[in-house]
Amino acid sequence: MSATDDVTRLAIDTLRTLSIDAVQQANSGHPGLPLGAAPMAYTLWQRHLVVDPTAPMWPDRDRFVLSAGHGSMLLYALLHTAGYDLPLDELKHFRQWGSRTPGHPEWHLTPGVESTTGPLGQGHANAVGMAIAERYLATLFNRPGHTIVDHHTYALVSDGDVVEGVAQEAASLAGHLGLGKLICLYDDNQITLDGPASLAMSEDVAARYAAMGWQVLRVDDGDRDVDAIDRAIREAKADTARPSMICVRTTIGFGSPKKAGTSGAHGSPLGKDEVAATKKALGWDPEAHFLVPDAAREHMGAIKQRGVAAHAAWRARFEAWRTAHPELAAQWDAAQQGGLVAGWDAAMPTWKEGESLATRTASGKCMVALAPRVPWLFGGDADLGGSTKTIVPGGDFDRTGAGRNLRFGVREHAMGAICNGMAYHGGVRAFASTFFVFSDYMRPAVRLAALNHLPVTYVWTHDSVGLGEDGPTHQPVEHLMSLRAMPGLWVVRPADANETAAAWRLALERTDGPVALVLSRQDLPVVAPAAAPVNRGAYVLREADGGVPSVVLVATGSEVALALEAQRQLVGMGIAARVVSMPCWELFAAQDAAYRERVLPPSVRARVAVEAGVTFGWGDIVGAHGKVVGLDRFGASAPGEVLYEQLGISVEAVIAATRAALAST
Amino acid sequence: MSATDDVTRLAIDTLRTLSIDAVQQANSGHPGLPLGAAPMAYTLWQRHLVVDPTAPMWPDRDRFVLSAGHGSMLLYALLHTAGYDLPLDELKHFRQWGSRTPGHPEWHLTPGVESTTGPLGQGHANAVGMAIAERYLATLFNRPGHTIVDHHTYALVSDGDVVEGVAQEAASLAGHLGLGKLICLYDDNQITLDGPASLAMSEDVAARYAAMGWQVLRVDDGDRDVDAIDRAIREAKADTARPSMICVRTTIGFGSPKKAGTSGAHGSPLGKDEVAATKKALGWDPEAHFLVPDAAREHMGAIKQRGVAAHAAWRARFEAWRTAHPELAAQWDAAQQGGLVAGWDAAMPTWKEGESLATRTASGKCMVALAPRVPWLFGGDADLGGSTKTIVPGGDFDRTGAGRNLRFGVREHAMGAICNGMAYHGGVRAFASTFFVFSDYMRPAVRLAALNHLPVTYVWTHDSVGLGEDGPTHQPVEHLMSLRAMPGLWVVRPADANETAAAWRLALERTDGPVALVLSRQDLPVVAPAAAPVNRGAYVLREADGGVPSVVLVATGSEVALALEAQRQLVGMGIAARVVSMPCWELFAAQDAAYRERVLPPSVRARVAVEAGVTFGWGDIVGAHGKVVGLDRFGASAPGEVLYEQLGISVEAVIAATRAALAST
Repeated sequence: MSATDDVTRLAIDTLRTLSIDAVQQANSGHPGLPLGAAPMAYTLWQRHLVVDPTAPMWPDRDRFVLSAGHGSMLLYALLHTAGYDLPLDELKHFRQWGSRTPGHPEWHLTPGVESTTGPLGQGHANAVGMAIAERYLATLFNRPGHTIVDHHTYALVSDGDVVEGVAQEAASLAGHLGLGKLICLYDDNQITLDGPASLAMSEDVAARYAAMGWQVLRVDDGDRDVDAIDRAIREAKADTARPSMICVRTTIGFGSPKKAGTSGAHGSPLGKDEVAATKKALGWDPEAHFLVPDAAREHMGAIKQRGVAAHAAWRARFEAWRTAHPELAAQWDAAQQGGLVAGWDAAMPTWKEGESLATRTASGKCMVALAPRVPWLFGGDADLGGSTKTIVPGGDFDRTGAGRNLRFGVREHAMGAICNGMAYHGGVRAFASTFFVFSDYMRPAVRLAALNHLPVTYVWTHDSVGLGEDGPTHQPVEHLMSLRAMPGLWVVRPADANETAAAWRLALERTDGPVALVLSRQDLPVVAPAAAPVNRGAYVLREADGGVPSVVLVATGSEVALALEAQRQLVGMGIAARVVSMPCWELFAAQDAAYRERVLPPSVRARVAVEAGVTFGWGDIVGAHGKVVGLDRFGASAPGEVLYEQLGISVEAVIAATRAALAST
Repeated sequence: MSATDDVTRLAIDTLRTLSIDAVQQANSGHPGLPLGAAPMAYTLWQRHLVVDPTAPMWPDRDRFVLSAGHGSMLLYALLHTAGYDLPLDELKHFRQWGSRTPGHPEWHLTPGVESTTGPLGQGHANAVGMAIAERYLATLFNRPGHTIVDHHTYALVSDGDVVEGVAQEAASLAGHLGLGKLICLYDDNQITLDGPASLAMSEDVAARYAAMGWQVLRVDDGDRDVDAIDRAIREAKADTARPSMICVRTTIGFGSPKKAGTSGAHGSPLGKDEVAATKKALGWDPEAHFLVPDAAREHMGAIKQRGVAAHAAWRARFEAWRTAHPELAAQWDAAQQGGLVAGWDAAMPTWKEGESLATRTASGKCMVALAPRVPWLFGGDADLGGSTKTIVPGGDFDRTGAGRNLRFGVREHAMGAICNGMAYHGGVRAFASTFFVFSDYMRPAVRLAALNHLPVTYVWTHDSVGLGEDGPTHQPVEHLMSLRAMPGLWVVRPADANETAAAWRLALERTDGPVALVLSRQDLPVVAPAAAPVNRGAYVLREADGGVPSVVLVATGSEVALALEAQRQLVGMGIAARVVSMPCWELFAAQDAAYRERVLPPSVRARVAVEAGVTFGWGDIVGAHGKVVGLDRFGASAPGEVLYEQLGISVEAVIAATRAALAST
């Protein structure tokens, strides 16, 4: 098949014209990438990608990530012509309320969209995560004579994607791990939103990827030379020891007489006349809108044919495997549904009053207890595993696929985005661990986990000034509040080891969003019962003497013990205080009003919150008459106990605040 | 001087033993890096670095950034032996409350510390910013025959630094800009906190930097070969067209018999016995603690000698320049103090009721008005300048140093860290611009700006779901609250063009911390007076009819106009509402109680907040009886007006909330 045979060209131009028609109709969007990248997308999809449009979630399908999410119309055009359930009418409602064709691709909204992209670099890193998940699951489930996990991950990346730090981190790890089934196509159009990429970029991208251990391939004429793209993809697949980057030179806005090769084609509709002129230049009928010629549709039908056949063959292999390995198959079923098998928590430890240990240490013990029973719990740390206590038996995940501790290196942002990729892929429960303060490095990826309801678990330790000597750069102060502000994320700060175990339960039982475990560096006394109702978000940990509180002390994490001691001392002053442990605001807010009022009676207006962080936000809980013992400044370098004292997070401060709250009601 | 002559070795081992003594005394810290990197630090400081320990802030000094901030004791040992005002007693109080030797170096706390480091990658990027500032100021102030800005920026970077995305972004930009006066020494010890770097890293770092346009040099024996280090630094200085990366192979924990070359030397004290054994291995008296031999001190005195002489010579050049160019000198004085010259705001535009424009557009007009009068206002955008309207006349900053728009490329995190570096350097007022949602990408750098009181201005546009079709990945929802939680950052969300101009005034007048301008994509009617008191944080924009409000409507940004319309409609319902515009929470909280109560009278308990973001946090303002019209979910892809309507940010919603608030009081 020659690069320019009629039906090939027809199919490519169908993708192009669908894209510019939809952008024009929406009067909003990015026509440039689809026009330039259609040939590589066509070649990949029509000739290589193994997906079943009739079963978009088939677990062993190839994955395709459009990292350059602004080119979303290209993806929608591919999905439509490939036979996914995305009617032409949806394309006509591009970027409109209620459509399945939003401005940037959104996972789960549109069948066949594998990852929510748009924020640059994220998709590139997601693809790395998918390829890692594939390798992990292959090791976990394949058996001699039975290969049920074996697929490729493809990504289409742009200039912006290869420049973003998150992508560079992820690419470095991909090279280190030798992810041979990861293949990226780089749309090297040398144009960014503001103008030529050379405004801000002159590096040798190919050499950089080679330095990171990738196979680098080139296609000189990505606008036309479909066979060269095809050859490059074949070469990429042939190298199973290295990820591949195919640098494809293209012309942004290809075909547009006035805007091709300029940033004018990047982020704005071409305009009605230029759409017509572009169609004319492509040999298309300028009066035809949203046209999918029958021949093009038929030609693109190869995708479905290949995929349906591959899926059927896989199903036969899968059934044979299931028969041979029923116990593995039960695990597979649970893992695919993000679920758990009976007895998963049988070994979860509990602790007794009188014991004292850091919640990071308790978390580590929970993970060791969980690991053998939830083999698809898979993740790692950003070079702090020894401190965050997240390393479980089983060795390090490596080029062979053996091992279950994923050493992300000092790459927090990529860690977050790779975990998202693993979650998009499915079949694993991803976790990521670092110091709490470095959650900031991961934040864009955490947001995408929340937005996409991905059940990723964050193990963030060293959660306050209590970490001590490392000083203010390492001491989170505003992080609890800044993360509580994020819709969909559960932020859990356990008071002790027992609440930590309950938090891990929560994390694994949640399937519709991320959970952050915020843990102490320092030892904390065990104060909560073994079955602490962390799932209610907040609960009465110790009632006031006599059962009628005049003040409610609300605390989280390491400050719960401090509130309990204040309560004890307040008794001597004749003040009846209730202590509420509030490990998770989001879950408390989700309880019914009756429960919430039982915990925080509206009649008790004297409320004192205690948390070693900013006081900002506590007004939502303590109300106008409440007081907050907190920290409206950055920390300092000194031993943790000294900091608590110097910065006024103390029993005395709680008692003073209690008096003030009582006085103000 | 041979690599191992006695005094050289003595000086190096002084740095080493001071470091391990202090870490041991604190029983906390990182001994491994100082032991391994002391030779390169010694060589740079003793033979090359031009600084004046008696005048640490001399503007034309060389800059030295210890990007691997965990090795802080090495820096303190250097500062002490070089003659800075950092007595031995401070070293003995390493990591203690009130000392000037915190766990990680903190700018302005310790004379000679040029940048607060610890979060990996930041210092590397800060150094890029310093080198950019140097070039910009050289162009701005040097004149034929008068060179008053001409210095090098050095950074010592670790494995972690070269892996972090923020550093990779910054390095790529440094290569693009050909920052020939930037020289980095890479402590290639192949060990990270958790073990060998090869756990997670196998890339060819040298080849990667070469691909990014750096000169790459190598030193094979960084533990001993001082002359090779010296030669490499000379070569680095000789290449004025490219930044240089000197890869120095070292042994972490050099000298420690049991821990050298292992991660055990990285992040924990060696232990008393191992400290003694290390000293013995180095030929040091194991019983001597915090010993600075006279010969070593005298030898390190070369730093002060060279620096004082260079400073004196510079002062002479400077005075000649001042005489020749008094008008420039006045600008220099203002810029060095972070100040402004008379008339700086003479051209600031104002707008009248009836006009309507996006606050990003108003901001752009302000910037164009400011640019010629504040030539040291210098920054740029992350490939969105056309959208954020931050490009001012004067062309793009480039390899020649001409131009004043810095095109950061799609590198938001590095943009933040580079602006910090420019602010640390001094003499420029740095700004950075991107979409508000991508403030997440910059967050670790924003935090460091806040922590270090750096007057960086962020121009964050497209500030709500009002941006429309780009969808939830591009729509900030939680960002206002998550940034308001950060101590020291002023978050300003102007209601209209006039408040935008006032916000720009604030930003330039603030010298002790960062200011974020949060601006709309969409047009907003002009509703505020030209002299809107944005500096009070909040103010009564329109009083209730009759002057006695029964409800207070508090709004920010684009929602102020909506509150005004609600107020108008409420009149017809017999409800007297006051409208408060609250562009900046932090400034409002800083007002005295009398002012705050004048704006938000405690007697008016019915309060309604309106903001197109999460409702989280508003409890601090509206109290128990208040209501919030906001958005506790992510956005969607559709035209902005449609989203406001569908998501319930509307006049009707404000009126309903008002009735509910009145009913609950």
